[in-house]
Amino acid sequence: MTQSIIDIASRFLAQNDKICLICHTSPDGDTVGGAFGLFYALKSLGKNVYVESFDGFPEKFRYLYPDNVEKFEPDHYATVDVADVGLLGNCQKNLSFSLCIDHHEKNSIEARYKCVDSGAAATCEIIYSIVRHLGVKISKQIANCLYTGIATDTGCFRFSNTTPQTHKIAAELIEAGAKSCEINFRLFEQKTRERLKLESLVLKNLEYYFEYRCAMVFVTKDMMRQAGADEADFDGIASIARSCAGVLIGITAREVENCQYKVSVRSNQGASALNVCKFFGGGGHKMAAGFKISGDMQAVKEKILQRVYEEIIH
Amino acid sequence: MTQSIIDIASRFLAQNDKICLICHTSPDGDTVGGAFGLFYALKSLGKNVYVESFDGFPEKFRYLYPDNVEKFEPDHYATVDVADVGLLGNCQKNLSFSLCIDHHEKNSIEARYKCVDSGAAATCEIIYSIVRHLGVKISKQIANCLYTGIATDTGCFRFSNTTPQTHKIAAELIEAGAKSCEINFRLFEQKTRERLKLESLVLKNLEYYFEYRCAMVFVTKDMMRQAGADEADFDGIASIARSCAGVLIGITAREVENCQYKVSVRSNQGASALNVCKFFGGGGHKMAAGFKISGDMQAVKEKILQRVYEEIIH
Repeated sequence: MTQSIIDIASRFLAQNDKICLICHTSPDGDTVGGAFGLFYALKSLGKNVYVESFDGFPEKFRYLYPDNVEKFEPDHYATVDVADVGLLGNCQKNLSFSLCIDHHEKNSIEARYKCVDSGAAATCEIIYSIVRHLGVKISKQIANCLYTGIATDTGCFRFSNTTPQTHKIAAELIEAGAKSCEINFRLFEQKTRERLKLESLVLKNLEYYFEYRCAMVFVTKDMMRQAGADEADFDGIASIARSCAGVLIGITAREVENCQYKVSVRSNQGASALNVCKFFGGGGHKMAAGFKISGDMQAVKEKILQRVYEEIIH
Repeated sequence: MTQSIIDIASRFLAQNDKICLICHTSPDGDTVGGAFGLFYALKSLGKNVYVESFDGFPEKFRYLYPDNVEKFEPDHYATVDVADVGLLGNCQKNLSFSLCIDHHEKNSIEARYKCVDSGAAATCEIIYSIVRHLGVKISKQIANCLYTGIATDTGCFRFSNTTPQTHKIAAELIEAGAKSCEINFRLFEQKTRERLKLESLVLKNLEYYFEYRCAMVFVTKDMMRQAGADEADFDGIASIARSCAGVLIGITAREVENCQYKVSVRSNQGASALNVCKFFGGGGHKMAAGFKISGDMQAVKEKILQRVYEEIIH
């Protein structure tokens, strides 16, 4: 990590007060953990600080944030893990930002000071460096916050963004008292009844094509209703189709409106999800991409399968 | 880790040759990864060494072991991750062991030198220290082996046995070239079609009791047949029942013979799986225990639920 961006961010935070930290919409563990990790660190320095989240704070991160924090008219706004103004609430888009802390490859936030490092697996890795640079002792609370962000964004050290540095920071955070085991249970094992019901339906409806090299499932509005599942319950469902051994391309088509589908494609072993999605006007990464498509379910299925076949054969 | 046991094991290995490393039966990633990690390290020192596994080497660890290794009449036998002679093949039980490397809390192997550290999350952590002590550079092969063992035994850094030291070693292994992302995909994401089908049936048959504080599923022989699932596919299924948010006790009863059930109990939030299992003559750990029970399914179900109710109420 470029030490100079850590210097700049730390100096700004050390020299200023009355700071509002802003999370992105649909807040995840990295934005919430990062913002509150920094919140507790700045509090320990006697600063006035609070965290703002347009979409509130999810109940699953209840262990990270305090009950009541007094808000005030801030002198400075700082974004945490926000790649783009599109990820801010409407009332936040036109604020003037003093600091932007983020790890996304493309960050388009306009801020006086930018502390962006796309080599970091999580924004919480960057905030760990800032907190250390500020000379703040990592408390148990801070450790829980930062560990949560790192575990969230690396899928518990499974994804390719995990570096030796990620593990070294995790070691420090556990030493500082992060309850890693409990956090991981909450983040990765515990599921709602509705989610389990949805998984059951998805697994039941999984279809295989091309000698089991493609797995495909259509998640209809009726299935979501049957499971009683909501948006949060659907999160991560797209990884199921690819998880079957031998599958090169996994397709999860979710019915968003009648005859309108949001399709998530995941690939494996050199096959390109991105190629498939580009054909339909979508985008993403090589192994995880998506697109939208309209039409009768059977027709949509055939169109997708035809394109998948070409990707698998070539 | 007591440095002296590492000293002793390293000195023994440095001073001797013609060594046979022995894995435990039903080999997992820690015994296979540990044995081959040490195998490659000793090979690099010019030693004659081979690995023996009574149950062979699972295909899922194909990336860890070489195609053909010449066997010979060894001067020494060393066990890797074997807690007890019960975990050896019949022809291996009466061998005289020179060295025993293990991390299980109760290790009853009789060996000239014992290198046992129950504070290590995996035997591969101990072998990492030995390999370093031997002055061997951690090659990519060794790194893949040792990372596999550590990821296996910590559930990818999720379980409570994960220490700061575990993460520090993981950092070193990734630096040395361990393909952590690929390994984790194989170990934790990829599943057989039969396993996915079995999960689908388990989720479909999950029943809730006592205001959703108990989840219970009976996995019948018929369900196993329907899924085409085998022993390996069943591994880890017992964690599904506990995974539902709010569930204190998760019960998975597997029909092993007609009217005979092997019951796995998992608990959460202070409830004791062990208490439930002890009542039926079983044992285990507080949050993961088991017992065997015979009888008509409905009668067995009622007996278990009665005991679970008492555990939840108190």
